[in-house]
Amino acid sequence: MAWEKELFNYLHGGNLERAMERYDISLDRIIDFSANINPLGISPKIKEVIVKNIDQLSHYPDPECKEVKKVISGYFKIDYENIILGNGSTELIYLIVQTLKPKKVLIPIPTFCEYERALNNSNISINFYKLKEKQEFLVSMDEIIPQLPGIDLVFLCNPNNPTGTFLHREEILILVKEIQRRKIFLVLDEAFIDLHEEESFIKEVKNYDHLIILRSLTKFFGLPGLRIGFGVGSSKLIKELKIQKIPWSVNYLAQIAVREVLRDEKFISKSRSFLLEEKEFFYQELSNIKGWKVYKPSANFIFIKLLGNISSEMLQNKLAKKGILIRDCSNFRGLEEGKFIRVAVRTRKENIKFLKELKLILK
Amino acid sequence: MAWEKELFNYLHGGNLERAMERYDISLDRIIDFSANINPLGISPKIKEVIVKNIDQLSHYPDPECKEVKKVISGYFKIDYENIILGNGSTELIYLIVQTLKPKKVLIPIPTFCEYERALNNSNISINFYKLKEKQEFLVSMDEIIPQLPGIDLVFLCNPNNPTGTFLHREEILILVKEIQRRKIFLVLDEAFIDLHEEESFIKEVKNYDHLIILRSLTKFFGLPGLRIGFGVGSSKLIKELKIQKIPWSVNYLAQIAVREVLRDEKFISKSRSFLLEEKEFFYQELSNIKGWKVYKPSANFIFIKLLGNISSEMLQNKLAKKGILIRDCSNFRGLEEGKFIRVAVRTRKENIKFLKELKLILK
Repeated sequence: MAWEKELFNYLHGGNLERAMERYDISLDRIIDFSANINPLGISPKIKEVIVKNIDQLSHYPDPECKEVKKVISGYFKIDYENIILGNGSTELIYLIVQTLKPKKVLIPIPTFCEYERALNNSNISINFYKLKEKQEFLVSMDEIIPQLPGIDLVFLCNPNNPTGTFLHREEILILVKEIQRRKIFLVLDEAFIDLHEEESFIKEVKNYDHLIILRSLTKFFGLPGLRIGFGVGSSKLIKELKIQKIPWSVNYLAQIAVREVLRDEKFISKSRSFLLEEKEFFYQELSNIKGWKVYKPSANFIFIKLLGNISSEMLQNKLAKKGILIRDCSNFRGLEEGKFIRVAVRTRKENIKFLKELKLILK
Repeated sequence: MAWEKELFNYLHGGNLERAMERYDISLDRIIDFSANINPLGISPKIKEVIVKNIDQLSHYPDPECKEVKKVISGYFKIDYENIILGNGSTELIYLIVQTLKPKKVLIPIPTFCEYERALNNSNISINFYKLKEKQEFLVSMDEIIPQLPGIDLVFLCNPNNPTGTFLHREEILILVKEIQRRKIFLVLDEAFIDLHEEESFIKEVKNYDHLIILRSLTKFFGLPGLRIGFGVGSSKLIKELKIQKIPWSVNYLAQIAVREVLRDEKFISKSRSFLLEEKEFFYQELSNIKGWKVYKPSANFIFIKLLGNISSEMLQNKLAKKGILIRDCSNFRGLEEGKFIRVAVRTRKENIKFLKELKLILK
């Protein structure tokens, strides 16, 4: 199967270098719908602060990320000692596995493939909970809870990548109470929750010491090239993670960029309202196209099942020739090969171009 | 002992945030002799290329670092498939341990403490080979080779941090042949070898598949804030490391900076001749001061033993009040507490200021 071949081969959305090589197109001709990044680009304040501080690159970055933690603590209203910064939330996925050393892990699939990659160790067994297409790929509490006995660690991505499904607080809470009671760790990956901030569990780690929240700081803020994310957990667990962590994984510019961007209320509120509106527009327009099923999105990307003869790979190739990159979801474990794609929400102009090219291809 | 207390607590040179807090001084008043970084600062070409490419931060960095690998391959004349990039060479230390899963490791001490931190796992035992002060802390082949039976992995830092001792090619070669014969992996950390490039083993991995070389790209190029280093090993081992590696650990700006700096022959040759000359000057001047022993340096830092009544901590504190940071070596395993310091080679003006303040303190 495709995921076996590619799981360990850096196959993610947003791999522009590989796309440029594969389709022989230049970077300036690419519109990237394959990675779920804020299409408004980088806040001008970020550019300013980076240019102003380039000379500081001659010092090591603060390994403890103190100033960033203070800003995050203030912005999200969580305690300083519950926060750990990482080279993207991805570093923290690996760090959590190395620190907790789980023996048996439960992962609902399809989902972000780095959980499985991080568990690539002969001493760990993985139970996959295959989400059902007929249930719209939603995690069912009735189904997941009976699977918990014997498990040490659960990964749950909410909103889920690539399906875009979203579990509301009251449902997640059932799971959180259960893992707490059973002393099973739950990594709740909220990398795409920015449009539903009020539903985040980020403030709940003080009540549940087996809950760990992961957050990205680069998707919503349009800075994936910089690499920074954070985790929130009990102060005891955060201390244990720090012991295992490599010291300088978060570079200096990422640290100052985040300190700046979290103060940039204008950029944040503009991005949020833009993405909420554009996601709705794009979803409606995509839904009007025949020959596929469009899943209702809860984040800045849209999951689609192709129903006709065209395969996801064919569609990906045809669009790529027009400079449009999409995510063929064939290498997600738990998804039928050739049938599913994921498309990021971009600017109105880019989304319209996408719709136009798509209609020409499907005609 | 101090190293036990601090080993896991990010205690390294160059932690300016901690120094600012501890001594209540502002960043612009600090001259940092505690981290071994090229004091000429950042090449103007690097600044240019960063400013020009800030907008590209809205894309993920290339997880395979293809373009950087091509440039490194050309510059060091080594094969592309023998190279792996990391978030500093430090990420690679951890990655090597996770991938090779050694049971018994040999480390000559005192040395860089991240080797020991990376081995912090109950299933790994460490044999420390304590280097002798009366042998100028030099690794003796007659002593290390009998210690190899039963060992899976050896870490050797050359030039060694913090002692600045340097083993020449013919000596290292004795060890390399022995580890190869016994199928023991040797991580030869050449993070500080830039002033002795001709003695590097970087081209030897094609002859010895149990040899792994680590190189920093930020110390000599004055960019520690960016985080990038690389490892060189057999193509088989590099493939195995790639499977375990987190995908985007090397950020976009680090990748373009290295592509630029390795082409900047003027900056490289200027830095090399400057450091060679200044190291000699600083070493001679420091040697003229009574009350301590100065070890002959082989890299851009100088190792000193205090012989009088002043402790390394006292000296560190007194100099810090003048805005001068040095590295108190008390937390290096294998060094007598309170007796050793490490001082980076900086610009002539800064080195003279150091000598002046030092003489006032020692008087």
